[in-house]
Amino acid sequence: MNNRLEAVAGQLWGESEGKTFHIFGHIQPDGDALGSQLALWHALRVTGHEAIPVLIDPLPPTYQFLPGREAFVPWQTVGAVERAIVLDCTGWDRLGPAADLAQSATVVVNVDHHRSNNNFGHFNYVDQNAAAAGELVFRLLQAAQVPIQPATATCLYTAIATDTGSFRYQNTTPGALRVAAELLDLGADLATIIQNVYQTVSLPSLRLLGDALQTLQLFYGGRLAILTVSKQLRQESGATEQDVEGIVNYARSVQGCEVGALLHEKDDGTVKVSLRSREKVDVSQLAARFGGGGHLRAAGYAVLGGMARAQAELVAEVGKYLDGHP
Amino acid sequence: MNNRLEAVAGQLWGESEGKTFHIFGHIQPDGDALGSQLALWHALRVTGHEAIPVLIDPLPPTYQFLPGREAFVPWQTVGAVERAIVLDCTGWDRLGPAADLAQSATVVVNVDHHRSNNNFGHFNYVDQNAAAAGELVFRLLQAAQVPIQPATATCLYTAIATDTGSFRYQNTTPGALRVAAELLDLGADLATIIQNVYQTVSLPSLRLLGDALQTLQLFYGGRLAILTVSKQLRQESGATEQDVEGIVNYARSVQGCEVGALLHEKDDGTVKVSLRSREKVDVSQLAARFGGGGHLRAAGYAVLGGMARAQAELVAEVGKYLDGHP
Repeated sequence: MNNRLEAVAGQLWGESEGKTFHIFGHIQPDGDALGSQLALWHALRVTGHEAIPVLIDPLPPTYQFLPGREAFVPWQTVGAVERAIVLDCTGWDRLGPAADLAQSATVVVNVDHHRSNNNFGHFNYVDQNAAAAGELVFRLLQAAQVPIQPATATCLYTAIATDTGSFRYQNTTPGALRVAAELLDLGADLATIIQNVYQTVSLPSLRLLGDALQTLQLFYGGRLAILTVSKQLRQESGATEQDVEGIVNYARSVQGCEVGALLHEKDDGTVKVSLRSREKVDVSQLAARFGGGGHLRAAGYAVLGGMARAQAELVAEVGKYLDGHP
Repeated sequence: MNNRLEAVAGQLWGESEGKTFHIFGHIQPDGDALGSQLALWHALRVTGHEAIPVLIDPLPPTYQFLPGREAFVPWQTVGAVERAIVLDCTGWDRLGPAADLAQSATVVVNVDHHRSNNNFGHFNYVDQNAAAAGELVFRLLQAAQVPIQPATATCLYTAIATDTGSFRYQNTTPGALRVAAELLDLGADLATIIQNVYQTVSLPSLRLLGDALQTLQLFYGGRLAILTVSKQLRQESGATEQDVEGIVNYARSVQGCEVGALLHEKDDGTVKVSLRSREKVDVSQLAARFGGGGHLRAAGYAVLGGMARAQAELVAEVGKYLDGHP
């Protein structure tokens, strides 16, 4: 591990003076990708390197507070890439349309915290025990003794806080909490992060939540809770498809509920089913029966045939799992 | 500070063998009071002392997972109190009907993190820089070299996590994050804490949220957002008055909103107005004009005369503040 860490730090700060780094994240970027990209950009600039953070999809409004955001460049405008740093990506597919561009680099540095990372870089710093890519970037800066300025600290804190759901998800570790503490000491602007990430919701999104909660249905004595978002509901609210995503957690949150589900009718008529479970049901198994997948407590699948049929099939299938079989 | 810390640790573990401690929190107990009480109870028992954690109001369902909860005793059943430890209370008034009982103790130890604490104990360990009373209890255990078992760690983590809103509130400090990290190392059961505290909502409470979101009204181009909960709405939902409280944060969360308000018609017809602001308006000042009070960003007041009048008066008054006067 430390060998990798030092090899990667060496690539970035050791022998690479005068080179330009392009810093990539993944499609549909989240706080970890964006925060890690900008933190590394700050750190490379502070140490006299050229660096360009690259956006594949547009910067979401939530992250338009990140210090350095104006440096982001859309991938379409990037010419040749000499040295690519790829952050928070399990493999090339996570770069979508920009994969070829990044892959064309002479040297590829891969920094990631996902178990399924396939070590696609020439240099790989992958640690699945890290809560976020931002935690790995922090360790890189420490290893290279790069000073961490308040703006950098804010980016890294955003990365770690968002990927752990503000230290609520299972990937929260003592190490992540200690890095967060150091970042606050270094001047991370917690108030701004919290206000933008957790205390701001678009009006359409809030209206959609209110409407979706009206659809709450309980089955099996409350052990299954279902919320539905029809195409019409979403369109009338003006919310985006992304706004729909978090709503499934409200289903699972009902006291006494084991499985929470959200049925979301997409514009093309497909029904996207998101599943969350509390402690017994393996929803990745359940989703696999409908051709989907995911994790033990969070999974999903998509089916055709309309909302009513999707719900009936889901209710029947969950019933088997609640009874302890299959 | 350290003198106080050691004096208090000495009272608890130094010269007090064979004594019984009654451990008090405040009325309407929260995670910090309850977690701190039970952590100290565990720690005193582990070190061979007699200790009794005392409840003034019933244990809320949210905290019925806390290890040691079955040791809680209602204050009405407590006879004489020799040594009282009072946690997370600014003064005697926070003990409500149990104040006289606790005050009758020969020795009172006061451990608290509120700025307004009036040092009412014979021994006082008060530090307003601590994020939670649980952080102070942790330091006491460290000072006294009391081993912290996983159950104790779970109680202390609950105390710190709840009082910081899982590290989202302004009282989040590097110190609080480091103590949290140590508690995870010591075996705090984060998954159980998160599931009970943040991922469980009563069905009536969730239904009430859905209904309340339907009432969203915006004023002044979206800078004021108002949600209302009528007596009828609350009663039909089956939610408690406590369930209503958190809803005001949804009002403030609307993008572009500076002041969020919740108007809640109580059973006796009083309208309770809760206010939250984002960065400009001092809502404590605003609330004071209606005979209420609070903090810069969170305040409230109660008025008679019905919902419509309360709303009209509020809208008019907020308008003055949004324009920068008074």
